[in-house]
Amino acid sequence: MLDALFKPKAVALVGASTKELSIGNVIIRNLLTYGYKGEIYPVNAKADKVCGLKSYATIADIPGEVDLAHIIIPSQFVPQAIEECGQKGVKAVIINSAGFSEMGDEGVKLQEEFLANARKYGIRLFGPNCQGIINSDPELNAYCNFTFTFPKPGSISVVALSGGVGALIMQVLDDLDIGQRFYASNGNACDVSIPEIIEYYGDDEATKAIILYTEGFDKPREFLEVARKVTAKKPILAMKAGRTEEGAKAASSHTGSLAGVDIATELIFEKIGVLSFHDEGEMVRAAMAFSSQPIPAGNRVGIITNTGGPAVIATDVLIDFDLEVPKLCEASIARLQETQFPQAALENPIDVVATAGGPQFRAALDVLLDDDQIDCIYINFVTAPFTDTDAVAREIVEVNRQRRKPMVCNFMTNMKLERYQKTMAILKEGEVPYYANPGDAARALGALVQYGRIQQRDIGQEHYFNNADATRAAAIIHEASQSGREVLSALEVYGIFEAYGIPVAPWNVATDVEQVVAAASEIGYPVVVKVDCAEIDHKSDMGGVAINLKNDVEVLNTVTEMQDRLGHFGELGFLVQKFLPGGRELIIGASAERELGHLVMFGLGGIYVEVLKDVIFKIAPVTAVEAAEMLAGIKTAALLDGVRGETGIDKEAIIELIQRVSQLLCDLPMIMEMDLNPVMAFADEVFAVDGRIRIHIDN
Amino acid sequence: MLDALFKPKAVALVGASTKELSIGNVIIRNLLTYGYKGEIYPVNAKADKVCGLKSYATIADIPGEVDLAHIIIPSQFVPQAIEECGQKGVKAVIINSAGFSEMGDEGVKLQEEFLANARKYGIRLFGPNCQGIINSDPELNAYCNFTFTFPKPGSISVVALSGGVGALIMQVLDDLDIGQRFYASNGNACDVSIPEIIEYYGDDEATKAIILYTEGFDKPREFLEVARKVTAKKPILAMKAGRTEEGAKAASSHTGSLAGVDIATELIFEKIGVLSFHDEGEMVRAAMAFSSQPIPAGNRVGIITNTGGPAVIATDVLIDFDLEVPKLCEASIARLQETQFPQAALENPIDVVATAGGPQFRAALDVLLDDDQIDCIYINFVTAPFTDTDAVAREIVEVNRQRRKPMVCNFMTNMKLERYQKTMAILKEGEVPYYANPGDAARALGALVQYGRIQQRDIGQEHYFNNADATRAAAIIHEASQSGREVLSALEVYGIFEAYGIPVAPWNVATDVEQVVAAASEIGYPVVVKVDCAEIDHKSDMGGVAINLKNDVEVLNTVTEMQDRLGHFGELGFLVQKFLPGGRELIIGASAERELGHLVMFGLGGIYVEVLKDVIFKIAPVTAVEAAEMLAGIKTAALLDGVRGETGIDKEAIIELIQRVSQLLCDLPMIMEMDLNPVMAFADEVFAVDGRIRIHIDN
Repeated sequence: MLDALFKPKAVALVGASTKELSIGNVIIRNLLTYGYKGEIYPVNAKADKVCGLKSYATIADIPGEVDLAHIIIPSQFVPQAIEECGQKGVKAVIINSAGFSEMGDEGVKLQEEFLANARKYGIRLFGPNCQGIINSDPELNAYCNFTFTFPKPGSISVVALSGGVGALIMQVLDDLDIGQRFYASNGNACDVSIPEIIEYYGDDEATKAIILYTEGFDKPREFLEVARKVTAKKPILAMKAGRTEEGAKAASSHTGSLAGVDIATELIFEKIGVLSFHDEGEMVRAAMAFSSQPIPAGNRVGIITNTGGPAVIATDVLIDFDLEVPKLCEASIARLQETQFPQAALENPIDVVATAGGPQFRAALDVLLDDDQIDCIYINFVTAPFTDTDAVAREIVEVNRQRRKPMVCNFMTNMKLERYQKTMAILKEGEVPYYANPGDAARALGALVQYGRIQQRDIGQEHYFNNADATRAAAIIHEASQSGREVLSALEVYGIFEAYGIPVAPWNVATDVEQVVAAASEIGYPVVVKVDCAEIDHKSDMGGVAINLKNDVEVLNTVTEMQDRLGHFGELGFLVQKFLPGGRELIIGASAERELGHLVMFGLGGIYVEVLKDVIFKIAPVTAVEAAEMLAGIKTAALLDGVRGETGIDKEAIIELIQRVSQLLCDLPMIMEMDLNPVMAFADEVFAVDGRIRIHIDN
Repeated sequence: MLDALFKPKAVALVGASTKELSIGNVIIRNLLTYGYKGEIYPVNAKADKVCGLKSYATIADIPGEVDLAHIIIPSQFVPQAIEECGQKGVKAVIINSAGFSEMGDEGVKLQEEFLANARKYGIRLFGPNCQGIINSDPELNAYCNFTFTFPKPGSISVVALSGGVGALIMQVLDDLDIGQRFYASNGNACDVSIPEIIEYYGDDEATKAIILYTEGFDKPREFLEVARKVTAKKPILAMKAGRTEEGAKAASSHTGSLAGVDIATELIFEKIGVLSFHDEGEMVRAAMAFSSQPIPAGNRVGIITNTGGPAVIATDVLIDFDLEVPKLCEASIARLQETQFPQAALENPIDVVATAGGPQFRAALDVLLDDDQIDCIYINFVTAPFTDTDAVAREIVEVNRQRRKPMVCNFMTNMKLERYQKTMAILKEGEVPYYANPGDAARALGALVQYGRIQQRDIGQEHYFNNADATRAAAIIHEASQSGREVLSALEVYGIFEAYGIPVAPWNVATDVEQVVAAASEIGYPVVVKVDCAEIDHKSDMGGVAINLKNDVEVLNTVTEMQDRLGHFGELGFLVQKFLPGGRELIIGASAERELGHLVMFGLGGIYVEVLKDVIFKIAPVTAVEAAEMLAGIKTAALLDGVRGETGIDKEAIIELIQRVSQLLCDLPMIMEMDLNPVMAFADEVFAVDGRIRIHIDN
């Protein structure tokens, strides 16, 4: 429970300062300005008073109980301060001070020291190198933070890895006049983690939606498991920055903890239904809609407009978000004919025209509310100078109050004019989410619809194939690991595949020419022969693969030639395999991700993966629904169904194959990389034709 | 010259009204509110005064000269009013009234009537069904418009097809406190056109940048030619809505003039260097940067930040816009070491840290100004509560005043606090383009860099191949046209290709089996045989193509079989052609676009065009530079260079081929559609292997 942190009854400030431009002063002023209802205890041995409050020489001197302390002193004194907090019975500490893990070895040592002290007393630590928290509950008004935005109470809770972005989000929400509930930015996050905060927000009934800013996760699996439960209850709107290589470099330079472009975070978002944004403004504007509107039951939008062009822009954007703009039913059109001006366009968008007043808007709104083909409503409302704009706003508000269908409003006006300020105030008071331009309003509605889709999506459960022989596969890996081989032999790879029921083309291994010829005859011509040698990792590039060998003589000549040419690499083994021409070449791959598990990749092989990079990733375990999404998600999905009169491939077999690969990976976490490349797919069967497994070996 | 419209010395209002909520009243109040320096003449027979001004019974009664008149009366009276304007000597008329071409046949008739009257007197007409114009020149203050935004003087001029979007753009500019020069929204545009207005803005020295909103052009070629000259002088920032099918439908329903998704407008923007936006907010925020900043000489950005996360977000977005974030040179880093705090990150982004004040910001700015590897500057400036933010703002302004390198600033603050309002005022006064979040600032800088790239781009001139036989090709088309054949025969298609030096595989035509065999022998085996029959348009789907025929017997059997199976369609001819296996299959196509000329298409043939739609379009004439851009622009461009050890194709030959196709199209405008499909490309030669031409026939 993080109540001591988010709902403190008394706050001590170790490092309270009388200097106006110092954090130890700003936090106290913020607490006072915001009207904190608990006790504030400045700790400063040199001052009698700080910001008019009595100051204490040490924490021990504080008369009352303290559940939360800020620490704002140079890093070398922090371990001792934590010790004193422990003795005082402080339950949570926000360490605002910097100079720890982000500053190299010495800082890391200090951090370990104060963490040990905290554990001794069961203190939860927030930070270090962080801003703090805010709780806007009017019963508490806890502004334990040095930022400058004073949010009004509301239902949006924010958590941000970066204090700068956190402050920005809080500010933009406030500029939009959106109330906020909790705020947290935990800097180096040595103890209280973002997943933990998300869980806390998830359990908080007053939080309706969560905004998250991150640059990656130290423990992505922990986030995945926690956030999965939260998204089932309420929306998480998230932005992960550091998408580009340069952005990731900038991120790692300021957090000191993460590096490299990770695709895993976006995949986590997708898997568990976190709404992912690439633009911070768009995310916050979407939150505005979530804070007041119900979730749309579907993606069919009815548009009401009193001006042409903005409806065109909105339509484009709504379509980009996969909304539909359906035709209105005849009954709806008939009702519109009775109520709208003759110049009105009685389609969807409904153009009520610029002269439309309250009655015309209201009639159009009622038609959309009653039309079963419409799930949500988009309104363009320009304050035409020749209409009673207040009356229009009042009708929109009345319909909004019914909460029958979600709506957003693009409200185009001059806010400098008193007349329109009044109109705006009506919309605001009526909790209509309104935006300054059509694109912004449409994107916010798009996010609502997207969350509706997430709520309805069920990726199902992982299927466990009972005929998998996990013991056999584990034994193979154990043996390779024992003998220090990171890259498994063909025999081992195919053995593992067979253990998991992954279909492979008929095969055998051999160590000399005679054995190869014998194996080929047994398998039946034509065959493929591949060298199998730990020293030759990329055998195809080395000329170690010969396809479509049709008889004993061809096999004999090929193997002899390979022995001559490649023998100096080490002892050559050979893999003999049935040659299967004419199928569709696919690739299935996997890689282990730090602290997360495996990513599974699917795509078309050959130039499609090499040139087009046309592949889809999912996080294991992959369900049948997700596997089907992988097949449908590649740009060249049509090729799986066959083009130009070809027959398609056996997609169900591929979906099963992906699930079996997923099960294999979950059972064998020591696999670092695995490729089934190619998988040859035919109309009624599929085969892994080549495979490669690299494992992790403990040194 | 549109001076009478944009710089009127006296404005008459035919339809002036005493009713407050009417257009005929609002326009007069707007003129008065804005402080119009010319004469205002209300025309209203029933009132003595309108808005305190003397009213006249008829236009003829007006004592002084009138160069501009508004007409705000029911549509049926407009032709007579124009007649009276003509008699009075009015030079330009804004017809605000609706009820013309957008309202069906009767409206069209009225429009023709008043247009005839206008031509008789040489009156220029603006509208009908429009808002009007604004000229913010303080010497004139002409607010000939019924909207509600009163722009301050500035250097951005706006033209919008949609009044709603035009008003929105004007309002957002004003919200950002950006000055504006001209505004125009011309509705149905029966006379004065958007290209004409763009030309006028282009010639206006006080206009530094132009914002254009459109949903397509009635005369795209006119726009292309006009705007091409303007973009060489000043930037045009444009948004074309109706990108999606549904958006285009919404657009056509409110303009009544355009339909269907057109790709041509975006291609025009690209060809002539108009900056294209898909978001109206982004476009206007970019205009803010253009209104004060020089154009970057290159794409290398230096980032200064006093907070980590927003620099990560900015970096991501800048990289999306193809900017580079280069390492700083050693001299720069050394200078930073001397001037920055120890915790600062002396990389790019330069993190001056939250405690940085004016001196630290200034020193970092000076380093970026002096570093030759940096073309432009991005600043994150969060108003940390423990710094002198005014001092920081003053240093940014001083550097901005030097105009040495363009800069944008993401200014993150709470504008409700007086302290920061002051900081903001310093930035504003100093003409620093500042934005409320990192993405917005980065996108604005991205647009500046993009325009710098446009200014440096030279697509060169159309090359005219002198060995083209235009006369022969025109004669072929003339004959087909005379005999009423829209789809040309193979003989005709290949004749035209040969006339333009388009390489085709050796070929001949024949009408019976013996001739086919003789032709095949002469060309040399293997050959392809295709039926050639006007009734069979898609011969491949009909089984009318046989490839890789190796000898006389195979040809004989094939042709006999085709005659039996397809003879009932009509008289069959045959095209015999050299079979050329093993090349890369390409497609070059062309289609005529209404009022524009031809679009030329290039892509890889087969599944690449069918499944991936991986094609690039350009507007003819296509220069060598543009043809090279087409080859480089497809997603599968790597295939042209060869993958997996293949040799690449002869790209120069394809570039020449595209130019020859372009020349052919420009010479023969009656071609509606043309395909070279496939073109077979090899390492050192290319051939059109099949072709199809459809022409326009006048009835």
